Amino acid sequence: MSPFSARTDFARTWNPLARALAERRERGLPLLDLTETNPTRVGLPMPEPAPLAHPDALGYVPEPLGLLSAREAVAAYLAGRGAPVHPEHLVLSASTSEAYGWLFKLLCEPGDNVLVPAPCYPLFEYLARLEGVGLRHYRLPFAQGFGLDVGELAAARDARTRAVLVVNPGNPTGHYLREGELEALGSWCAREGLALVSDEVFSDFAWDEDPGRVATVAGRSLPMPTFGLSGLSKVAGLPGLKLGWMHVGGPDAARREALERLESLADTYLPVNTPVQLSLRPWLAHAPRFQEAVLARVKENRRLLRDARPRHAPWSVVPAEGGWSAVLRIPLEPGEEATCLALLDAGVGVHPGFFYDFTGGAWLVLSLLTHPDVFAQALGPLARVLAASG
Amino acid sequence: MSPFSARTDFARTWNPLARALAERRERGLPLLDLTETNPTRVGLPMPEPAPLAHPDALGYVPEPLGLLSAREAVAAYLAGRGAPVHPEHLVLSASTSEAYGWLFKLLCEPGDNVLVPAPCYPLFEYLARLEGVGLRHYRLPFAQGFGLDVGELAAARDARTRAVLVVNPGNPTGHYLREGELEALGSWCAREGLALVSDEVFSDFAWDEDPGRVATVAGRSLPMPTFGLSGLSKVAGLPGLKLGWMHVGGPDAARREALERLESLADTYLPVNTPVQLSLRPWLAHAPRFQEAVLARVKENRRLLRDARPRHAPWSVVPAEGGWSAVLRIPLEPGEEATCLALLDAGVGVHPGFFYDFTGGAWLVLSLLTHPDVFAQALGPLARVLAASG
Repeated sequence: MSPFSARTDFARTWNPLARALAERRERGLPLLDLTETNPTRVGLPMPEPAPLAHPDALGYVPEPLGLLSAREAVAAYLAGRGAPVHPEHLVLSASTSEAYGWLFKLLCEPGDNVLVPAPCYPLFEYLARLEGVGLRHYRLPFAQGFGLDVGELAAARDARTRAVLVVNPGNPTGHYLREGELEALGSWCAREGLALVSDEVFSDFAWDEDPGRVATVAGRSLPMPTFGLSGLSKVAGLPGLKLGWMHVGGPDAARREALERLESLADTYLPVNTPVQLSLRPWLAHAPRFQEAVLARVKENRRLLRDARPRHAPWSVVPAEGGWSAVLRIPLEPGEEATCLALLDAGVGVHPGFFYDFTGGAWLVLSLLTHPDVFAQALGPLARVLAASG
Repeated sequence: MSPFSARTDFARTWNPLARALAERRERGLPLLDLTETNPTRVGLPMPEPAPLAHPDALGYVPEPLGLLSAREAVAAYLAGRGAPVHPEHLVLSASTSEAYGWLFKLLCEPGDNVLVPAPCYPLFEYLARLEGVGLRHYRLPFAQGFGLDVGELAAARDARTRAVLVVNPGNPTGHYLREGELEALGSWCAREGLALVSDEVFSDFAWDEDPGRVATVAGRSLPMPTFGLSGLSKVAGLPGLKLGWMHVGGPDAARREALERLESLADTYLPVNTPVQLSLRPWLAHAPRFQEAVLARVKENRRLLRDARPRHAPWSVVPAEGGWSAVLRIPLEPGEEATCLALLDAGVGVHPGFFYDFTGGAWLVLSLLTHPDVFAQALGPLARVLAASG
């Protein structure tokens, strides 16, 4: 009998693409990496000077939900984005991953499940499994621009479903939740007794204005317990500082109960570094400059990508509205893996659609955060390899 | 049906002592608080200048087990305390609480259980429950100086027991694990197929030398998977920085497997702040100065406490070898709660034994970290109230 649990018995087999990538790295061959999403590695602006040395930085005030001054800083940030919220309705954690862990504990017994979108960044599998929670996938139909379809949710749920997770805008699909979609979702969740968890880490990265979009569930009047998640990692490009937040919303009684339980839960771990909390206002002050630089970068790379596509090419750039990624639809033959391997041979790294649970076609995913020099260099080989397929 | 889980349905009733304390605070009455264990609030030395601003502090290198340079700093610290270990066998987390959460996930399915000591600081109840894990208590017999008794472990275990937790030295009992105890424990765990989790956050706070003691399980050859936990919070008095570590030991194959699984697990959360990791060596350099000050403080308060006890008093200071607490044995009548309430009336805050699962008598627990001025002032009322009991 193994001394270790089934819930940590993670698969450790490598797919051919991972093997080919490792081999290429071992041989020291160059790579134009279009999968880089670490914002600290792609030449984007950093806060200077870094506001780390607050005079009280080493004092310790164990406030489970986060220091009030830090929650006020987040509330001020959200208010500036058009979402007025009470600091008392915010909960800080070390990351959105940790916030997910807490929410799975709050909402689910072991054996319960949550609904997660497909396609989606492969974030939830381990997070849920480690809490003894199952996943059931609901499709985001390509025919609806990867938008939310309540019929798909209803088809995916079962008797042990406890919550719906939405990623807004979708990652990597870049589709924003529409007002009408949220309304339908709210009615359905309330009727079915399900909570809503809304991952909004990319919501500040809309490529253009559109009043019909939902930027955040925070500060809205919604008929079910609602949790809106974001953090410094994406908002200000500072993943190493380890500070995320969630806004708790929904009917008053449920919100109060959720906050009390989250307070006990957070008190059990107390995970957020004090110096970062004390300097949260100056850290967040860096966000506009970072976001402006990211948006310029992402739009320029997207323009380059569209320009690199010949008329009548057998591939296309899937329409989207925001985020850090581009999705390409490619021919079914030779398919995702063979295309990724051919691109790797040509020195270009991209992600296959299956990595994100795409179905109903063949797809590639590229990071638009890539340094423009690398991105521009990669487009020639990319267009050549894709032209040869189909 | 509640939208929230049973595992977060924490009790929220207040015991009479908590109510009396809150009432006293509301009325603005002074309190000589002998329960303060926050090392940043009792006039102990702090690192100056604070080494927060490392030049690479904002870069992000997501190393799941922790930056190698930070793990090397921990290994150097442990080597200096007589425990030579490989940095590759260390795992960083944001706190020992988080490390416990990871270990419960690693070792237990929902419904499994772990053995925890009684008396003990009430740390494990929420931590285990939140992972769907049960607790079974094994007694630390007072007759054996609150030492470990394998017979008690055997009596406590059942078919779903997966691990033994030891706290070394005991908190608040201050008893260190002996070489002979560890040997018996190792044989028993190996025979029963159980892992060992050793909480060593106070192990650097022995009040005097004794070669028969076990300071840490790290770096020892033990026959079962073994996890030794500590962190900056107690070792250097820096709880707000949020950096803990665990050493993974035991038979090679099990250690390798444990480390691989912990790597996937840590990769799911990536909770540790980068600036703190990058400056871990200077933070740890502060540890000796902090520990020296704590030891002087704790020994002085303990001396004051012993001196304050009249001959033939109906209470006694329980012998101990280290840590930050003192345990008093008091008369069975009027008992713990009534005594704590009488002390509170006299302006002195202490913890009742039931808070730590003491049985077989009546007990109080005092923090020896208390500022000596406060401690000295509290001893008069303490001795008076205790003299009136029994």
